[in-house]
Amino acid sequence: MTFRASVLTLYPEMFPGPLGHALAGKALARGLWTLDALQIRDFALDRHRSVDDTPAGGGPGMVMRADVLARAIDAAAPPGDDRPRLLMTPRGRPLTQARVRELAAGPGAVILCGRFEGVDERIVATRQLEEICVGDVVLSGGEAAALLLLDACVRLIPGVMGKLASGEDESFSRNLLEYPQYTRPQEFEGRAIPEVLTSGDHARIARWRQAEAQAITRARRPDLLGTAPTPGDHRGQERE
Amino acid sequence: MTFRASVLTLYPEMFPGPLGHALAGKALARGLWTLDALQIRDFALDRHRSVDDTPAGGGPGMVMRADVLARAIDAAAPPGDDRPRLLMTPRGRPLTQARVRELAAGPGAVILCGRFEGVDERIVATRQLEEICVGDVVLSGGEAAALLLLDACVRLIPGVMGKLASGEDESFSRNLLEYPQYTRPQEFEGRAIPEVLTSGDHARIARWRQAEAQAITRARRPDLLGTAPTPGDHRGQERE
Repeated sequence: MTFRASVLTLYPEMFPGPLGHALAGKALARGLWTLDALQIRDFALDRHRSVDDTPAGGGPGMVMRADVLARAIDAAAPPGDDRPRLLMTPRGRPLTQARVRELAAGPGAVILCGRFEGVDERIVATRQLEEICVGDVVLSGGEAAALLLLDACVRLIPGVMGKLASGEDESFSRNLLEYPQYTRPQEFEGRAIPEVLTSGDHARIARWRQAEAQAITRARRPDLLGTAPTPGDHRGQERE
Repeated sequence: MTFRASVLTLYPEMFPGPLGHALAGKALARGLWTLDALQIRDFALDRHRSVDDTPAGGGPGMVMRADVLARAIDAAAPPGDDRPRLLMTPRGRPLTQARVRELAAGPGAVILCGRFEGVDERIVATRQLEEICVGDVVLSGGEAAALLLLDACVRLIPGVMGKLASGEDESFSRNLLEYPQYTRPQEFEGRAIPEVLTSGDHARIARWRQAEAQAITRARRPDLLGTAPTPGDHRGQERE
């Protein structure tokens, strides 16, 4: 089963963008996943190709129309297409690594990128959109968030990463940030690699790394501690 | 003062990528901000142009070398360049809208995109890198996070958004998610716009929106409630 991503956006030229390079780009070229970007404006019916209108009840900005978005979503995901439908919006639930894992293990995703003041709420209800936010920041639109979400998903698609990296990924399922890393040169601007790491004492190294990981997590992400570790929800534990 | 972004990456071809389009792309073309992407590999000295080596103390993967990164950072930000130096890494503190505002009001940023198992800790210490994470997910590298961070910053650079949108932005400084939005058509697939929004009763509309915003925040982001609203830290309140 190939992971199929369909992105609905006013800026299809942003895709694949960064996903056309490096790990994701190679996987795309190898056919391990597919990406199509649909221009929402193509589903507007009036001669101005309007996709938005003023908010009911007043207020600044514009709201994306439910009828236009419905035609776009229905074209991207006809009946029988059971891919999850995501809406990138600051109103959404924060994206987690656990959700990324589920998505990567599934058939793909239809991703609607919000712009302007947001989308007509009725499209969320009638098309069962899952609202997702990435980072507690306001973006110019959902596109950058969609690219980040797909980057996180694609690396977990079977065959994209080497076996080693995947296995390693599995072995970290604790809610801890990474311990600090060092590599050659042995001395850099007067600073040596911590002695423990060059001691060859594996048990001592493991204890040191565990203590460092706990210390940095306590300092930076106390919210991660005290929460029960959930399998698959192991953030910040590795990069390939 | 022009906002200057310098990105250090193994994939400079990913930039400007999505930031070359739409709002950020127009602002880039108008010279409201600048972006240069430096190839870290150009600062490797050996004939293989190695940027990484195995982790001291063992473990899977590779670690980016402090000496190579130091040369790249020093080239991007020579003495006297007082731009903040950011490292995109899952070990970092979560990006907030408050930090985005500060960055957007400043001279720009030097952004190092981590790859592999991470970077040698000594580069963080000697170059005073601010470690930032975007979303609790593991990426193939820091590039997608850097693009998202820059998208969030650029829209706040003076002159990028219209006056209306900026003013509106200022007016929302509460830790609440957005209330639901509706626009024409009045009826969509049997669902009407909520009556209150077409009542013309502005006080009632304001009360309804406030109650909806509180309800959705309680349901999706209880973490935002009970925290004191801080000026500028108003997530998810608008999009232009």
